[in-house]
Amino acid sequence: MAGWESYLEEHSGRFVEELLQFLKIPSISALPEHAGDVRQAAVWASERLRAAGMENVEVLETGGLPSVYGEWCHVPDRPTVLMYGHFDIQPVDPVELWTSGPFDPQVRDGRIYARGASDDKGNLLLPILAVEALLATSGSLPVNVKFLLEGEEESGSRHLPELVSEHRERLQCDWAVCADGTQRGEEEPAVLRGFKGMCALQVDVTGPNMDLHSGIYGGTVHNPLHALSQMLASLHSGDGRVLVDGFYDQVVELKGIERDLIAEVPCDDAEYRALLGVADLFGESGYSTLERAWARPTLEVNGMWGGFSGDGVKTVLPSQTHAKITCRLVPDQDPGRIADLVAEHFKTHRPPGVEVSLHVEESKAWPYLMPVDHPGNRAAHVVLEELYGRPPYYTRLGGSLPVCGILLDVLGVYTVTFSFGLEDENAHAPDEFFRLSSFERGQRAYCKLLEQTGAATKPS
Amino acid sequence: MAGWESYLEEHSGRFVEELLQFLKIPSISALPEHAGDVRQAAVWASERLRAAGMENVEVLETGGLPSVYGEWCHVPDRPTVLMYGHFDIQPVDPVELWTSGPFDPQVRDGRIYARGASDDKGNLLLPILAVEALLATSGSLPVNVKFLLEGEEESGSRHLPELVSEHRERLQCDWAVCADGTQRGEEEPAVLRGFKGMCALQVDVTGPNMDLHSGIYGGTVHNPLHALSQMLASLHSGDGRVLVDGFYDQVVELKGIERDLIAEVPCDDAEYRALLGVADLFGESGYSTLERAWARPTLEVNGMWGGFSGDGVKTVLPSQTHAKITCRLVPDQDPGRIADLVAEHFKTHRPPGVEVSLHVEESKAWPYLMPVDHPGNRAAHVVLEELYGRPPYYTRLGGSLPVCGILLDVLGVYTVTFSFGLEDENAHAPDEFFRLSSFERGQRAYCKLLEQTGAATKPS
Repeated sequence: MAGWESYLEEHSGRFVEELLQFLKIPSISALPEHAGDVRQAAVWASERLRAAGMENVEVLETGGLPSVYGEWCHVPDRPTVLMYGHFDIQPVDPVELWTSGPFDPQVRDGRIYARGASDDKGNLLLPILAVEALLATSGSLPVNVKFLLEGEEESGSRHLPELVSEHRERLQCDWAVCADGTQRGEEEPAVLRGFKGMCALQVDVTGPNMDLHSGIYGGTVHNPLHALSQMLASLHSGDGRVLVDGFYDQVVELKGIERDLIAEVPCDDAEYRALLGVADLFGESGYSTLERAWARPTLEVNGMWGGFSGDGVKTVLPSQTHAKITCRLVPDQDPGRIADLVAEHFKTHRPPGVEVSLHVEESKAWPYLMPVDHPGNRAAHVVLEELYGRPPYYTRLGGSLPVCGILLDVLGVYTVTFSFGLEDENAHAPDEFFRLSSFERGQRAYCKLLEQTGAATKPS
Repeated sequence: MAGWESYLEEHSGRFVEELLQFLKIPSISALPEHAGDVRQAAVWASERLRAAGMENVEVLETGGLPSVYGEWCHVPDRPTVLMYGHFDIQPVDPVELWTSGPFDPQVRDGRIYARGASDDKGNLLLPILAVEALLATSGSLPVNVKFLLEGEEESGSRHLPELVSEHRERLQCDWAVCADGTQRGEEEPAVLRGFKGMCALQVDVTGPNMDLHSGIYGGTVHNPLHALSQMLASLHSGDGRVLVDGFYDQVVELKGIERDLIAEVPCDDAEYRALLGVADLFGESGYSTLERAWARPTLEVNGMWGGFSGDGVKTVLPSQTHAKITCRLVPDQDPGRIADLVAEHFKTHRPPGVEVSLHVEESKAWPYLMPVDHPGNRAAHVVLEELYGRPPYYTRLGGSLPVCGILLDVLGVYTVTFSFGLEDENAHAPDEFFRLSSFERGQRAYCKLLEQTGAATKPS
């Protein structure tokens, strides 16, 4: 048994106690009245980094809520990894649905219940405890380690791009490791290597200059609800392929190893249908369900509204109607360019008698896909196979994780997602929990990952 | 000068005073707290009928608010006409926009300002004052006259069908005359002889059994917003023709005299565009603007909603989305049958992966078109030409006037609309008014109409 393994076992009770202390801080970044709590969590995390042996620990201010930095860089011929996690948490409403208080952490049936237990305080602690165990038992680390712990992840990482830019020298690394995310299952490991990008628009359609009586004026002017429906219907083919001109121009064709890796991941369409309660799945022909979810771009209408929505009948022909749209993007689609193409589609498909205006939202993200043979992925693969007794799947996600795109854009480095949450842990819901077994396995995993990384060739 | 003309002049001051008294009663039928006021207006109207010389005057109870009946039937070889009007009124909000209180009637610049002045208390009084003047000056009337004054017109005439059915013997007549509606202009008379019918539906589209993250699930299941847009887009051709199978099967082709009568009515498309603030008018090719507004059936979406409609971005793929639809119908379309055809269209156009449910609303109305050469129309034509110095236009309306369809259905009689409101009189808005000149011209018009009707041949 390695020295660090004994250390982790000996101190496991204290580590759980520390997590429970951390979980008592209501560090909700989306609610301004909790700004002080987020700062308190930043101080807690910085002190914990120092206690683990990290140096040059500092709370980094931003235009919003702070982040925390720390480092140990004493093996210059070895790779440098940047550990990422976040100490801010989701809101707790509806608070009445919690079995125990969201900030009154409790251990029940091998699970730690509290807001942030899984997302992300429990996971964020894993690399900190790992470096503590390695330093305490060997006086050194197998690689150079830096930490960037964020305080605004749950409210959109708004200040992260400028923070990373401002501190780009200090944050230089060979790759990053993200302690936020999930594993595939208790027995099934996965390396999550891709996220879709995103762009978002609002469409406003205006017809007559006031709401009209649809009996008296119907048939003489275009109804903005009809015009909007027609334009929205023109966005997709019958099988869900996006018909916006040029939408697929930058899409890297899905083939070879990329297709094989997805095909290896089990996905039962019948279970998927049953879970969502639909009679039929739906989407672009020629691609499997997981291929469509993970590796094909989409255009989804997220909302539309206009006219009367109350009980009964109101015979109105509304002056205005609206729709919200987001596109999810895959390599190498450019979110700004795609937003422009969608806007152009509405302009060229505008029927007579209505005006159409487009608003491109600020929220956007680049698609992200990490090379499967990246040394960070190879190290994670070895560790996960050893811990789970089977090789990890290589997965992707249709959602977006902004930090990956930001670190690639600003620092030019990829991010290995290496996290031990599971999808049933109510991450954004009442009764969030983290398994004690995951907490312990995660500590071992991070120790092994650091060792494995140290054995890897430093990228040139 | 006929005797009744002198009588009207002599008593004109009293008539205005009586209208002002009538207008003080806040008989708002849509607001339950005003039920007592509606009853008070019924009593006022019944006393006014008695004072005018009507017999067998009675307040008729219904399941809701009452109507008022009265008659004078002493010339059995002459036609019998049923005079219709309503003594209930619209609500007054926003009350702060009124120059003087809605129930504090004031005469300013030749106009009587108060809620109900034009719609319909001022107009309702016209036939009452006319029969008073004729009876007072000649001791008789040129025709048999019955009155049916309603107390629920502004809240949908809900109990009118059963009331007319229950009293069908007493209400027997050769035709009805409706003192509710408008003239075309101060110098331009019109006989309004057609209204569209109506049916209404709500469409509910259900996809997955919960709102989904549109990034994670987008591309794998059908988005109900896409499905609804596609179904709504399938309802119309590019020029606005309704594509529901069988929709036009019962439509009487617009040709000959019907087309000529509409063509005679001035309608400037440029003015129409400017009024509504649209760059282009829109609708079925092969028909003029007035033909589409008055004599072609339409299907209009009155509202649609689903998903996110707040500020910014929410990446949701909603479980449900909805639309409200009304069809406006022309002879001989059957509202129940058309609602069924529209429902069928949604069922046959349902894309895979969503469920569609249809709810047909109770609100419906049959289309109504009075023969142009009906003796009631001919009498109105003669009177209007004499009073305005030019023949009336024959017009229609895209809206519905339930009483016309009800009287045709239950009593088998047509209704001549003979009213002297004008469209600028803020009928359902603050500062409603009625012109003193219209009030006086209307009294003369009703005296002449009764004389003209008496001279007409009694229909066999």
